[in-house]
Amino acid sequence: MSRAARTAPRAPEAPLAAPGRPFARPPADTARADAVLARCRELTHPALVDAVGQLDPWTGRMAAYALGWRDAGGAPDPTGSGGKGLRQALAVLSAEAAGADGATALPAAVAVELVHTFSLLHDDIMDGDPLRRRRPAVWRAYGVGPAVLAGDALHALAVQTLAEAPGERAPAAVRHLSRSLTALVRGQADDLRFEELPWTGPDAPGLAAYRAMAEQKTGALLGCAAALGAELGGAPGATVTALDRAGRHLGVAFQAVDDLLGIWGDPVLTGKPVHSDLRQRKKTHPVLAALAGAGPARRELAALLGSAEPLEGPRAAYAASLVDEAGGRAATRAEASTHLEAARTCLAATRPAPAAARDLDALVGSLLDRAW
Amino acid sequence: MSRAARTAPRAPEAPLAAPGRPFARPPADTARADAVLARCRELTHPALVDAVGQLDPWTGRMAAYALGWRDAGGAPDPTGSGGKGLRQALAVLSAEAAGADGATALPAAVAVELVHTFSLLHDDIMDGDPLRRRRPAVWRAYGVGPAVLAGDALHALAVQTLAEAPGERAPAAVRHLSRSLTALVRGQADDLRFEELPWTGPDAPGLAAYRAMAEQKTGALLGCAAALGAELGGAPGATVTALDRAGRHLGVAFQAVDDLLGIWGDPVLTGKPVHSDLRQRKKTHPVLAALAGAGPARRELAALLGSAEPLEGPRAAYAASLVDEAGGRAATRAEASTHLEAARTCLAATRPAPAAARDLDALVGSLLDRAW
Repeated sequence: MSRAARTAPRAPEAPLAAPGRPFARPPADTARADAVLARCRELTHPALVDAVGQLDPWTGRMAAYALGWRDAGGAPDPTGSGGKGLRQALAVLSAEAAGADGATALPAAVAVELVHTFSLLHDDIMDGDPLRRRRPAVWRAYGVGPAVLAGDALHALAVQTLAEAPGERAPAAVRHLSRSLTALVRGQADDLRFEELPWTGPDAPGLAAYRAMAEQKTGALLGCAAALGAELGGAPGATVTALDRAGRHLGVAFQAVDDLLGIWGDPVLTGKPVHSDLRQRKKTHPVLAALAGAGPARRELAALLGSAEPLEGPRAAYAASLVDEAGGRAATRAEASTHLEAARTCLAATRPAPAAARDLDALVGSLLDRAW
Repeated sequence: MSRAARTAPRAPEAPLAAPGRPFARPPADTARADAVLARCRELTHPALVDAVGQLDPWTGRMAAYALGWRDAGGAPDPTGSGGKGLRQALAVLSAEAAGADGATALPAAVAVELVHTFSLLHDDIMDGDPLRRRRPAVWRAYGVGPAVLAGDALHALAVQTLAEAPGERAPAAVRHLSRSLTALVRGQADDLRFEELPWTGPDAPGLAAYRAMAEQKTGALLGCAAALGAELGGAPGATVTALDRAGRHLGVAFQAVDDLLGIWGDPVLTGKPVHSDLRQRKKTHPVLAALAGAGPARRELAALLGSAEPLEGPRAAYAASLVDEAGGRAATRAEASTHLEAARTCLAATRPAPAAARDLDALVGSLLDRAW
């Protein structure tokens, strides 16, 4: 850079973000994001149905239940939901961002959606969560043994779907997916291990450890989804890497918002009881951030969490107010914002095709204020 | 074939097998087979240790327990056993049979051994089996949730190990492994589903359905092991296919012998109680073969199995004697022999390198009379 450039005065109209604070953004256009997600779900659905059709009838029925297509008895379920389909959308949009047809990404979109379904299914067993998307979890509907089997079937089917994808980039895509799968398991292991650690003191999980866990547990698969779409879409290696990083940042942000919803989310929209994560004494970002600070609210929160008494009703509500007062809620929202901005930066660096860029922007913009 | 050849008298010294009966074979040289297995275990062990070392400490500790290296507390376990290592041996020997160094097959040997360990770990949860190789199953030692996680970690690690193998044949190897994984799950689903079916009548599982199940549940991975060794060893496609078929036949034979051991095996050697499979009313080949016949023993057996009373002690012993009398034991031994012969035929067709051929022969020869 020339000396002139270095000393050039900043244009007065260029707004500057305060250190550590994100750029101001227009309010999220949720309707636009929903339309993008719906388009990608529609594109992926037939391929997903084809893939699940390869399963034996029994695990196939459990998979159709987990994906929200059928009820536990096998009848079509108009109330079922397979989720928003964020991962399949990232795969499709990143192929389009690389200038390819979204359909190129279908084996990747199917694979990441199957991996996501498998991981929810097994995580619900490990966490003892009885509900998933407002219906009994698969292990509650069919039993633990069958749920283990159905998860294994989806895991294997995901790898097979991608391994049999056409094109010379498929092997690299499979390597990427397999690394994401080991990262996903490692993240889940860390998450479960955190539950055994103390809330405070030198052995407590810090925010850096929490972020590393979230990057593995949630970020690895979002990064993989974005990277694989670009990979199958024939993008250069640098684009694939940048999209992987974008997805990882999205994952950390997504987990942070998930943690906010786990305490302050609307039970009607989340399908979980109010203050759910606090009742279960889950070590989430808002709580760890609150405990990382100082002041009376922090001390009172630590005492409440450390006591043997159950955190129900008013006690849970009081704990939530202490987390807020000690700065945990704001810190987690800032964490989500920071990583959404980082994701935007990574995405912009890939110079995405304009239409895909707009769709990705709508999607990213909707994540901070999502209610699902 | 010329008319002369077709009408040429058979050489009097060539022994003929009776229709449906295998060629007479010399008694199995168990010591030689054990030495072959030990050599392959020794070759594979460092690579297996390296792979498991990539797991996070928690799932890594469960994996080391499942592989017989450590006790549940993480201390070295001199009494632990990781099994004979048949799958890793098939991978190594098939590379050698193709004229390659056995070490070429190491990523395949490690992958199939990890898949085998994962499947045992999850199957024990599904079947509620409390013991594995004379020690508490992983789910009994660590809990169901952690055991689900450890299985997932091994499953993912297996795919990753093979996906990152060097050489241009690795992608085909990964495709093969992924198909075997879906077959394995399908076989386990069929096996569990059989337990819900009646013993007799039109809905009972027949012997053909049983064989199809065994080929998926046990044969797919043995076939994969043999095929992958040849694949990584650079063998032609026809050799890979023939070795896959050989391994599938070995798998069906192995399952038949397993079924014999499940009823008549020595509890000291199998680590299971005597008549174990009958006590659990498992639908195994000897029982299904006995029920497929006629006569008083078959009728009495059907009545015994259909009654609500537990099959314990003398009742289990009586059921075993009825299975034997109704021809189930002999039929299962014949099933094993037939498939071992078929495996030999497939192996011979690949014109294996002489030293590997001898090792494979010793291994195959030991399977019918194995006690493990």
